[in-house]
Order: sequence, then C-alpha cells, then structure tokens
Amino acid sequence: MTQTVGFQGERGAFSEEAARALFGETAVRGFRTFDLVIEAVRKGEVDVGLLPCENTIAGSVARAYDLLYAHPELSIVDETTHRIEQTLIGTPDACVDDVRAVASHPVALDQCRRFFAAHPSIEAVVVDDTAGAVREIIERGDPARAAIGPALAAQRYGGTILARTVADDDENFTRFFVVSLDRRARRAAGRATVSFVLPHAPGSLHRALGIIAERAMNLRSLVARPRPRRPFEYVFHADIDASSQEEAAALAACLGSQARVLGWY
Amino acid sequence: MTQTVGFQGERGAFSEEAARALFGETAVRGFRTFDLVIEAVRKGEVDVGLLPCENTIAGSVARAYDLLYAHPELSIVDETTHRIEQTLIGTPDACVDDVRAVASHPVALDQCRRFFAAHPSIEAVVVDDTAGAVREIIERGDPARAAIGPALAAQRYGGTILARTVADDDENFTRFFVVSLDRRARRAAGRATVSFVLPHAPGSLHRALGIIAERAMNLRSLVARPRPRRPFEYVFHADIDASSQEEAAALAACLGSQARVLGWY
Repeated sequence: MTQTVGFQGERGAFSEEAARALFGETAVRGFRTFDLVIEAVRKGEVDVGLLPCENTIAGSVARAYDLLYAHPELSIVDETTHRIEQTLIGTPDACVDDVRAVASHPVALDQCRRFFAAHPSIEAVVVDDTAGAVREIIERGDPARAAIGPALAAQRYGGTILARTVADDDENFTRFFVVSLDRRARRAAGRATVSFVLPHAPGSLHRALGIIAERAMNLRSLVARPRPRRPFEYVFHADIDASSQEEAAALAACLGSQARVLGWY
Repeated sequence: MTQTVGFQGERGAFSEEAARALFGETAVRGFRTFDLVIEAVRKGEVDVGLLPCENTIAGSVARAYDLLYAHPELSIVDETTHRIEQTLIGTPDACVDDVRAVASHPVALDQCRRFFAAHPSIEAVVVDDTAGAVREIIERGDPARAAIGPALAAQRYGGTILARTVADDDENFTRFFVVSLDRRARRAAGRATVSFVLPHAPGSLHRALGIIAERAMNLRSLVARPRPRRPFEYVFHADIDASSQEEAAALAACLGSQARVLGWY
C-alpha cells in the first residue's frame, strides 16, 4: 500500500524534495499552508504530513510547534534533515546569458544576493513560492525569464537547470517533522519532543532542565513560545534523546500537568 | 541634536512605526536588509539601528541575534515592543467595494486569510514589502487596487485607510532591539542580553541556566543557534533581568570564555 505524504507548497517544493528523500517514490499532495497540512492528516486525507521545524539560517519554525501542541491527536513519528539548494532554472531552450529577469520567493532572492550583484542586468521578481516561480516561467516559455527554486521543480515542470547553486551560504538545511495520527515511530531513532508549560519566574526553566539533565537525556533543541492569551506563561518544546516512548512519557509526567510528549521517533 | 535611526524596510514600514513610537519625531533611514542596518550603525551613518528580535506569531528573529553576536563593537541599548496592525489602504478616492486586487508581502497576506475569504472577488497580489505595496498602489492611482500594510505608510504616501485591522489575529507584536556603537543604556530598564557557547552535551544548558538561577535573574527569552561551521556547538542568547551592567558582566564571566554581554539596557 502506498502512503500519501502531505507537505506545504506547490509540486516540486523543497518540502516535496525532503519527502522524496525520506519516502522514495510515493504519492504526495501539496497544501497551501501548514494548517491545511495538519487538517489533512487529522482527517486522514493523507497518511503523514511533513512540517519544517528548524532551518539553519532562519532558526526554529515556531508555527510547526504551535500546531503540534494544539493537536494532541497527532504525533511526531520521524524527522529528516534536507539540504536547501537554491537552483537557477530556465525554460528548456534558455541559456544563462539571455536571462533578464529571475523570479522567486523574497526569502530565496535574499539568499542569492551575490548572484544578483554579479549579474546587475538581471532583475529580481518577487513571487510567493519558489516551486511556483519555476512553474510560471515554464508556462510563459520566455527564455529571458528564469526562476530560483528547488531542482525537483525543474524536473516536475520541464525546466533546465542553468546553475546548480546560486545561494550565498551553502550551509542551508531544513529539519522536518513527520506527523501522523498513528503514534508508532517510523524508525525509532531514539528521539522525542516533549512540551511543558512554565510560569515566567526566575529558575523555573532551570528546574525543568534539571529534570531532563538528571536523566542524562541530551537536549537537542529548545523552543520557547508565549502562550496565546496567557501573558507571562511560556510553552517550551524540547527535542531530546530518549531511548523509549515510556522514557519520554515518564519525563513529561515530571514536567507538570500540562506537559505532553509530541512524539517519540 | 537630532538622532538618526536606521531600520530595515521602506519608508512607512512597521519598523519605522516602532522607531516613531520610541523616538518621536526624529530623522530616520530605511535599509534593504538587517545587514545594511548593522553596517550603517558600525560606520556611524546612523546613530542607532532598530532590529526586530521577536514576533508573537513568527517567534524569534534568529538573524538579529546572529548579527549582534558577530559584531562585538555594537551593543543593545534599549528595546521596544510594537503592535503590528495590518491595515487595508487604498488610493485617496478608493472605497472598499471597488477594490479588486490587494497587494502585500506574502507573510502579511497570510495573516489576513479571513479578509480574503470574506471577499472572494478580491485577488491577493504578492510584493516584497508591505510599505512598498502601499507606495506602489498610490503611485498607480487605480482605486481598484489596494494594499495591506502599516497605517504609517498611508500617511507617508497619501493613501486612505479603508479598514483599520484586517489581520486574523490581533495579538501580533514585534519586539525590537535598539543597537548602537555607544554602550550606554538609553533608559536602563534593568535588562540584558547575554550570549554563551555550549557543547551539545547532556546537562550543559541546565548547568548554564543554574548559574543564572543562582543569581535569581529572571530569564525572559532564550534563543539557541547552531554555530556556523561548528557542528554540535550552540550559541545561546539569553534575555534576562539584570540590575546593572556589572551584574550582567559578572554573569557572562561565569558562563565561559566565549560568553559576552550583547547589551545592558
């Protein structure tokens, strides 16, 4: 039975690249927003959803943790780290010297400042999606118009890769959570995400991390989020090493009544 | 003597609104990127720079902390929290029923989903700046074309406010740091940002927070960033309450040789 993987973005997006790298050839479905990915997983319209949780340049993706905390029926069942490679893509007959305009998402354009500085005659054009930028320039068919986006989008829409990496910083990685209604870990790599609520008081986080440290559980990442409409209270999301589901659950039990395991994977 | 305040964005941006709220009537200069704001402060082209460090919806602005840690000659000397109000702005003769297209930054458009759902005949148009969207629609002068952006931009470019708040979530606040070459705190509210480097080992963050907790210094926010080209090492940026510059410096001295006070303010 083929799994269907939901992701945020158009066909050919970096999230679809990450899904392909993790799941191989499988059915995929793109959604416009993170919320719609979560909704599709909840309704069983897709088997799993892929949500970016951290990027090496931009930092944590707060919205992913907020959504997972808001939906206790869902679990993180795996994670994957994917290299974001901004690729210059043209129409099938394009060559780089003829390109006069390059379309992409503002964040991607901003990551490729050296390329635009080296090509002052090329105009940067803002659109709302990197894979969508590739789709659009292929549909137009104007060899003077290229796009910056995922290599997979060139394959999906029939574009030509004019330059393999055009970003200033090649250390651009995004970590994704795999989210499912079925709590069973996909690969059981010994990791967990545990969320807990703390008052905004001196020492409260130190005491909570002491509970983690006593158990010698390595803390891999920690994201603090203000609680909506609860000023001075924070939800902390800790990505830790945990050898079993039970170990993660025992930790959460010590971290207060509002603590919860978002997943063991 | 009038101070010049640098911010990221076009004239009329939310950052300029925040600068106005904090500094009143003063000279301001907009820059295209955070890096250019920092460069202008370093070169003395502006007296202070305003950098967003946290937004209630999006989370921490990792790039702001990265830049401040990379530039020890600069200090945080103040902070301010500003409400982000997405405003629907039209040409001087526009009325909302005639609007057919609304331009804004993709993040702003995404924050106004309910508005677009309630007005299915209005097309969302992506541009790379909210204040720039307002400038563009005023320049065009087409009453069928409106923009979503800061109310200040309507004032700057001569637009009409058609709806005061069009965002789904009204709890949208951005916290900004005021950055300067002059280390003296502007208002001395008893706050500090202290950065320290930790190995990725069980208990290391717990021990560091223990040093903060022993001193009964309230931890207001904590941002973890991977160190560039140093896998498994993290830089932590802690916003804390500290009664004096000396107290902040004494804390940093206990947090290891790579710890530094980014500012006491």
